[in-house]
Amino acid sequence: MTLRVGVIGTGMIGKDHIRRLTEVVSGAQVVAVTDADETVAKEVAAGLSDAVVHPSGQALVDDDGVDAVLVCSWGPTHEEYVLAAVAAGKPVFCEKPLATTTESCRHIIDAEVAHGSRLVQVGFMRRYDESYRALKGVIDSGDIGAPLMYYSGHRNASVPDHYTKDMAVVDTAVHDFDVTRWLLGEELIAVRVLAAKPNSLGGDLQDPLLMVLESESGVLVTVETSVNIRYGYDIRGEVVGEAGTAALADRGLVLVRSANRAGVRVPQDWRERFITAYDVEFQEWIDAVTAGRGATGPSAWDGYAAQAVCDAGVEALYSGDRVEIALGDKPALYS
Amino acid sequence: MTLRVGVIGTGMIGKDHIRRLTEVVSGAQVVAVTDADETVAKEVAAGLSDAVVHPSGQALVDDDGVDAVLVCSWGPTHEEYVLAAVAAGKPVFCEKPLATTTESCRHIIDAEVAHGSRLVQVGFMRRYDESYRALKGVIDSGDIGAPLMYYSGHRNASVPDHYTKDMAVVDTAVHDFDVTRWLLGEELIAVRVLAAKPNSLGGDLQDPLLMVLESESGVLVTVETSVNIRYGYDIRGEVVGEAGTAALADRGLVLVRSANRAGVRVPQDWRERFITAYDVEFQEWIDAVTAGRGATGPSAWDGYAAQAVCDAGVEALYSGDRVEIALGDKPALYS
Amino acid sequence: MTLRVGVIGTGMIGKDHIRRLTEVVSGAQVVAVTDADETVAKEVAAGLSDAVVHPSGQALVDDDGVDAVLVCSWGPTHEEYVLAAVAAGKPVFCEKPLATTTESCRHIIDAEVAHGSRLVQVGFMRRYDESYRALKGVIDSGDIGAPLMYYSGHRNASVPDHYTKDMAVVDTAVHDFDVTRWLLGEELIAVRVLAAKPNSLGGDLQDPLLMVLESESGVLVTVETSVNIRYGYDIRGEVVGEAGTAALADRGLVLVRSANRAGVRVPQDWRERFITAYDVEFQEWIDAVTAGRGATGPSAWDGYAAQAVCDAGVEALYSGDRVEIALGDKPALYS
Amino acid sequence: MTLRVGVIGTGMIGKDHIRRLTEVVSGAQVVAVTDADETVAKEVAAGLSDAVVHPSGQALVDDDGVDAVLVCSWGPTHEEYVLAAVAAGKPVFCEKPLATTTESCRHIIDAEVAHGSRLVQVGFMRRYDESYRALKGVIDSGDIGAPLMYYSGHRNASVPDHYTKDMAVVDTAVHDFDVTRWLLGEELIAVRVLAAKPNSLGGDLQDPLLMVLESESGVLVTVETSVNIRYGYDIRGEVVGEAGTAALADRGLVLVRSANRAGVRVPQDWRERFITAYDVEFQEWIDAVTAGRGATGPSAWDGYAAQAVCDAGVEALYSGDRVEIALGDKPALYS
Repeated sequence: MTLRVGVIGTGMIGKDHIRRLTEVVSGAQVVAVTDADETVAKEVAAGLSDAVVHPSGQALVDDDGVDAVLVCSWGPTHEEYVLAAVAAGKPVFCEKPLATTTESCRHIIDAEVAHGSRLVQVGFMRRYDESYRALKGVIDSGDIGAPLMYYSGHRNASVPDHYTKDMAVVDTAVHDFDVTRWLLGEELIAVRVLAAKPNSLGGDLQDPLLMVLESESGVLVTVETSVNIRYGYDIRGEVVGEAGTAALADRGLVLVRSANRAGVRVPQDWRERFITAYDVEFQEWIDAVTAGRGATGPSAWDGYAAQAVCDAGVEALYSGDRVEIALGDKPALYS
Repeated sequence: MTLRVGVIGTGMIGKDHIRRLTEVVSGAQVVAVTDADETVAKEVAAGLSDAVVHPSGQALVDDDGVDAVLVCSWGPTHEEYVLAAVAAGKPVFCEKPLATTTESCRHIIDAEVAHGSRLVQVGFMRRYDESYRALKGVIDSGDIGAPLMYYSGHRNASVPDHYTKDMAVVDTAVHDFDVTRWLLGEELIAVRVLAAKPNSLGGDLQDPLLMVLESESGVLVTVETSVNIRYGYDIRGEVVGEAGTAALADRGLVLVRSANRAGVRVPQDWRERFITAYDVEFQEWIDAVTAGRGATGPSAWDGYAAQAVCDAGVEALYSGDRVEIALGDKPALYS
Repeated sequence: MTLRVGVIGTGMIGKDHIRRLTEVVSGAQVVAVTDADETVAKEVAAGLSDAVVHPSGQALVDDDGVDAVLVCSWGPTHEEYVLAAVAAGKPVFCEKPLATTTESCRHIIDAEVAHGSRLVQVGFMRRYDESYRALKGVIDSGDIGAPLMYYSGHRNASVPDHYTKDMAVVDTAVHDFDVTRWLLGEELIAVRVLAAKPNSLGGDLQDPLLMVLESESGVLVTVETSVNIRYGYDIRGEVVGEAGTAALADRGLVLVRSANRAGVRVPQDWRERFITAYDVEFQEWIDAVTAGRGATGPSAWDGYAAQAVCDAGVEALYSGDRVEIALGDKPALYS
Repeated sequence: MTLRVGVIGTGMIGKDHIRRLTEVVSGAQVVAVTDADETVAKEVAAGLSDAVVHPSGQALVDDDGVDAVLVCSWGPTHEEYVLAAVAAGKPVFCEKPLATTTESCRHIIDAEVAHGSRLVQVGFMRRYDESYRALKGVIDSGDIGAPLMYYSGHRNASVPDHYTKDMAVVDTAVHDFDVTRWLLGEELIAVRVLAAKPNSLGGDLQDPLLMVLESESGVLVTVETSVNIRYGYDIRGEVVGEAGTAALADRGLVLVRSANRAGVRVPQDWRERFITAYDVEFQEWIDAVTAGRGATGPSAWDGYAAQAVCDAGVEALYSGDRVEIALGDKPALYS
């Protein structure tokens, strides 16, 4: 059985996911597309074997030939399309962010809770990365005891000129927030943001930052964002447990000894680092939806919680204070 | 366009590849199966959405609904089925060995050369492993200069009781022979086999062995087979170049510090180590066949050459002598 | 020429240094000892070839046969003995702390400045460790750009029952404070102390702690103290620079592959980790003193600055606030 | 008590050991020197506090003020001076080789056996290297089971023009031979030498070589000499045991992440790699001699056995054959 997917938003990320659904993973077919720029949507459809172009996201959702919806449009439109899919009772995969405000996220949660079962999945792909999964495996095994601290490092070689101070929190660290919640299995309840000596390679940007967060049970979490560090795209993570530690290893495949050095390659960008995670993410989503399980990955609650940490993080970035994060009660649907 | 694949042989490896074609990779469908045990073939077909059962390999090859053939049957039958597929002008993927004698391999080469284009691919999956590909990338980059030596280590935690002395060459080291030829881009021309002090954990088996091979240009190659080494399934490889070396890195994903040790996991078996390589191998085969390129992976010549090294290796194992390997001229089809 | 050393305090650390001066390093001889417990001093002297026992530290300092003084007595007595040595114009090596209050440290600085040349060296042995020296070498080479952040990790397998909350700052983290100042070549100006979820293996102790410090130029520094982490004695350090990072490597000498793991040993305690650093520290001190250079290692100013950071750290530990560190002007003698 | 050492041969290596005895290790004093070039000997003596110059090695050995002799002269003179020291009943440390022929080594053994206790120590410093000692520790612990194979790699960045084909065996691999005997605790009984494709960076030299040796119990040993490999001075070693392996780890102190690489430094030459081993070697020799134990390190038998392997290795290098090594009975003195 092939899952018939409709894609809302055929920009860069949408095109990449269409390629993935068509050429990489098993069990899905892209049968419908739509985009704010209809010309682009038509070009994309022309490259597919049998896909229709819809004039709007709502029309795509309403198409009986569409089993499941993939939302890759501009962030501010996410709420509308996800709500439409939920209203239609169709599974929907939404690229991050779930919505651009916690209020919008709450609307989605309310709709899904009213629907009564999970339909919404959010694109936090790190949870599908084999390294993070192995890290979670070690934590859950109990081999290093209960986690007490977690160091998360998010390093980019460089960022484009339009990258702003806030983006270190809402675009960069948001991945660290989500994966920390997932690794620890608990919520983050407070955040501070400290600015280090600025990297002169980053112009006027306040970079790097060190965010210090606290979890419900007291785990202390640091998130470093260094987005102009030149040497590569390097995602670090180390859990300090009661009796040991576990860290994401350097992932080099080949140890080269040359010119007085023995070392491995560091990836250049997120594609090189996480491309396989995206593939796994979609295969598992397709398998779950096809099996009638709606969604088993990051939930609307996860999207909401990440957004709430981002909001607090931005406030902390400007105030210099410790800002608390209040999520309210978690509906039973997400437990 | 979906590639319609017929599978000859639905034992353990056949079933695993059917799962792969059906649930993992993109662009293929298993439409026909056959097996020496028809009951097994029928059970397998029953688990597929729309597959017929044929009474023989020849019947499967002749089925117009079959675009390409996958041979997973018992080794001694490979020659017959591969020749049938070539005669029918259909692409055929044959699990290793291509055939059990060099003479049989020669028959296949002759048939394919007569056909005039490549149809045959042999299942040497290591060439699709990301670590070996990265190693080849370093060699080809020239960063460490021309290769002068290559150490290959093939370690299994244990082997079943029916594992014999010869199997260290023909079942175990054959992978090292193929991947060495591929990494170096040249043929192996001689082999010695030396027996080390026997591992008492392996009963009466002569294990480990150290094979010493020479390539056309003089590269010295050692292949260690240690098949009762308990600690895991560990595939090692180090190229010694003129100005540096490159080695397959330990592939651990998580560095765990506990109990006075800092270390990473070593895989338990070949599944854990190479499962992704099989997936890539089949995706690339499907893509090549679908694009009308017949086969782009390990060729009938590669299957033949590997078999010739194995024959010489077995002779060397019993004689203790240096045995030369004479392949004869390579048809232009394989250059 | 042999340096004639007098040792004040012949407890555990004093005995170890006497062994070092006598059996390990070159160019020194222990000629005089004293201790609060005269019986112990006599026993120690009896094991030496030609050493006298003095009734007091002052008497030892006054002994014309003593060229240089080594202070290994109880912390609160350091000020008195160091001042005595300075008054006598004799080089003095003082185990940490230089003195137990910043005011006492100031007295020593004043005395040494009045003397006009350096006589005092403080026992911060990490500066003599080959790993830290290599780390400083990378920083100073400019290869990773200017340092922006520094992560320091101080992990003990366990601590004795009498270990108190304050000791995490004044006994444990003090080493991190000193080595950070040395690596960065600048002062620390503020400190926060955050408590993580307590390690249940440490009883009622507030452990681990995360201290966040700021340097003059804005480098953000974290110091983790985890003193019940069971897995070993592990000293971590990573500098985040503008274009790269440099970290203390795992120092394992042998990579063992066994039981599905590939890994290296983590030391059990500070002796295993730093014993060579102590040897180097003393050889360099003897060489410098013998060459008439008085002291070239950690100075009275370094002892004072470390003490000032400790004081602020303890205040921050109790208040939860960011506490500033004001050192006042540094005398030219120490620049 | 200070050991009064007389040094025969004050060339480069002699000077370095004099510096070591004088400035680094504890418990020794150089009181006499001699050299074929008396001018050099006088210059060296002038730099010491109280050393006499002797006209000959025999005169130095006869000097009542000399407790122990250090032989650093040209290889062909070693036999004479070591025999002189043994005749005088004085402990003697002889730089490798013990003598240039096995017959000469036999003379020394006979003399020492006649003397009745060990006086002779040979300068195989690798046995004092902390990494090799840790490797031996793992073997002896039994954690990886009995050794079955050993890979030894000896890599130099480059060698001087006067380096000849034989020197790869007698000057380079001799260290691997000795340390292999020591690690395994048994003799080597046969050797083959295979030439790999020549490194074009080494001119006409036959380099690299792969030597394959067999131990008494059947352990298979490979020794790679790559003496023009440019990337550094890299000493590799891996023991393959019944249940695991143990390898000399890359010894980098700092992990640097820069320019898309994460790696550690490889030493440039033997000084950087083994300087500490020399220090330990001499401290332990001094301690043993001073304690009246004569010599506890590599013995005359070890020097003889290494020489015998070298002889066989050179024969194998020219003949291409497997050459057996026959040592004869080992006197009880060396068991």
